[in-house]
Amino acid sequence: MSAPRYAYTFQGADNSFKVGRVRVRFDIAYDGTDFSGWAVQPDRRTVQGVLESALCTLLRLPAVPLTVAGRTDAGVHATGQVAHAELADLPDDLLRRLAAVLPADLRVCAVREVPPEFDARFAALWRRYAYRITDARWGADPLQRTQVLAWPRPLDADAMAAAAQPLLGLRDFAAFCKRRAGATTTRTLQLLAVRRDADEITCTVAADAFCHSMVRSLVGALLAVGDGRRPAEWPASLLQLDRRADDVPVAPAHGLTLVEVGYPADAELAARAELTRARRD
Amino acid sequence: MSAPRYAYTFQGADNSFKVGRVRVRFDIAYDGTDFSGWAVQPDRRTVQGVLESALCTLLRLPAVPLTVAGRTDAGVHATGQVAHAELADLPDDLLRRLAAVLPADLRVCAVREVPPEFDARFAALWRRYAYRITDARWGADPLQRTQVLAWPRPLDADAMAAAAQPLLGLRDFAAFCKRRAGATTTRTLQLLAVRRDADEITCTVAADAFCHSMVRSLVGALLAVGDGRRPAEWPASLLQLDRRADDVPVAPAHGLTLVEVGYPADAELAARAELTRARRD
Repeated sequence: MSAPRYAYTFQGADNSFKVGRVRVRFDIAYDGTDFSGWAVQPDRRTVQGVLESALCTLLRLPAVPLTVAGRTDAGVHATGQVAHAELADLPDDLLRRLAAVLPADLRVCAVREVPPEFDARFAALWRRYAYRITDARWGADPLQRTQVLAWPRPLDADAMAAAAQPLLGLRDFAAFCKRRAGATTTRTLQLLAVRRDADEITCTVAADAFCHSMVRSLVGALLAVGDGRRPAEWPASLLQLDRRADDVPVAPAHGLTLVEVGYPADAELAARAELTRARRD
Repeated sequence: MSAPRYAYTFQGADNSFKVGRVRVRFDIAYDGTDFSGWAVQPDRRTVQGVLESALCTLLRLPAVPLTVAGRTDAGVHATGQVAHAELADLPDDLLRRLAAVLPADLRVCAVREVPPEFDARFAALWRRYAYRITDARWGADPLQRTQVLAWPRPLDADAMAAAAQPLLGLRDFAAFCKRRAGATTTRTLQLLAVRRDADEITCTVAADAFCHSMVRSLVGALLAVGDGRRPAEWPASLLQLDRRADDVPVAPAHGLTLVEVGYPADAELAARAELTRARRD
């Protein structure tokens, strides 16, 4: 299977037809607090909805479909989200014009032309998330409170780190996923690091991809270990399950931020996208 | 003049009278966005108002007057604000009870007994503020937008640093202050550093004390230099004025955070407070 070629036809505001010929990468940051997640939903304020609407206005197009690396849930933040779209051309000042029309809780930090083989979703090598928690007795720093979970009991970060270790690698994370019919729950967990800095604990998680609620379920399991409700062996023991473990708590959305998405060098983009598609089928 | 002694009398909820005998220091953090500044005002949500009200509820007292190090303006944040109060006693679990009743945009991070000579306002050696600015073309990181000013033009941080240097020392900052009748505008500016880290510029400002709007006026003057509207010599030239300079812009409140207040060792507290009071008279 070769990499697909796109050539969308757009009808501009002047009724002329334009042929899409530039693939454009968008690097995106948002405060997830007031968004119902990434993906468009009827009558909800979503990141995709607001951004596509801004692009339609600026580019005078009826639709600018975006393909995204990580479809974040309601309340989840991003500093390094990536999406792509097919445009007729890339106006020089698109970055500045986007800055002028987008709301302050959504920013496009970079816009650039990429090879036609670049696919924000299927060419990604890994997604990296950070989950921030504080166990300070007084709660979370007010200036960080929308992005740090205040945990009411002391956490043992060393126990959390020990519990994380055996989860790494290519495994079936069914216990940690909200199952979707026909979708695999096998993923390669590349990183699950727990680091304490004073009162704050950051769980950094990277995988080739994540199923729905997987990061927050992994963190929820580690929190149960961290405050002593579960032994350090418990999260790894769940890997034997072939369906969601009901007793794995899903950590609240607001502690989670999509930090970075990794892509291969341009020459390897097509091969990567093909490999990913084959695996998901 | 010797250090004053306090012995407030409180009427408790049980109608018994209690004599204040513990001076308590509060270390305080807040997101200033939804507060009309520190000081109590009728019909406004202020930090002092919310905190004193919480203390009254928890301690069952009709009033708990707080004395504060920095009376921040509406919209200004704090990570290291300090206040003191005179209490009948200091309950062991006051920190945790405050965490439970205070709103998430206001936290008391530490509570401890201090010597009776400790005065959050008059014993302070210095106040340190940080003013954060980004000149990224795309604006401010959504997760930092309530505490970082997005500047629409490129800034020359080196020029700002050069302009800051001759402002240091004991000077009359009348040009940078909203004058209050009878109050001196002479202050010792101990630090005015401008540091760039990628797109973000932080101005760190420390002085023995600040007059009203002084930090934001200093930053406003530096911004005029930074984007080329004024020469680097301009801010220092204003030191000759004996009244507010109308052409000094006051930088917006939300970029400003009170970071730390410095105090002398316990043995020197009384002498420091006496010296400060004498200067202000």
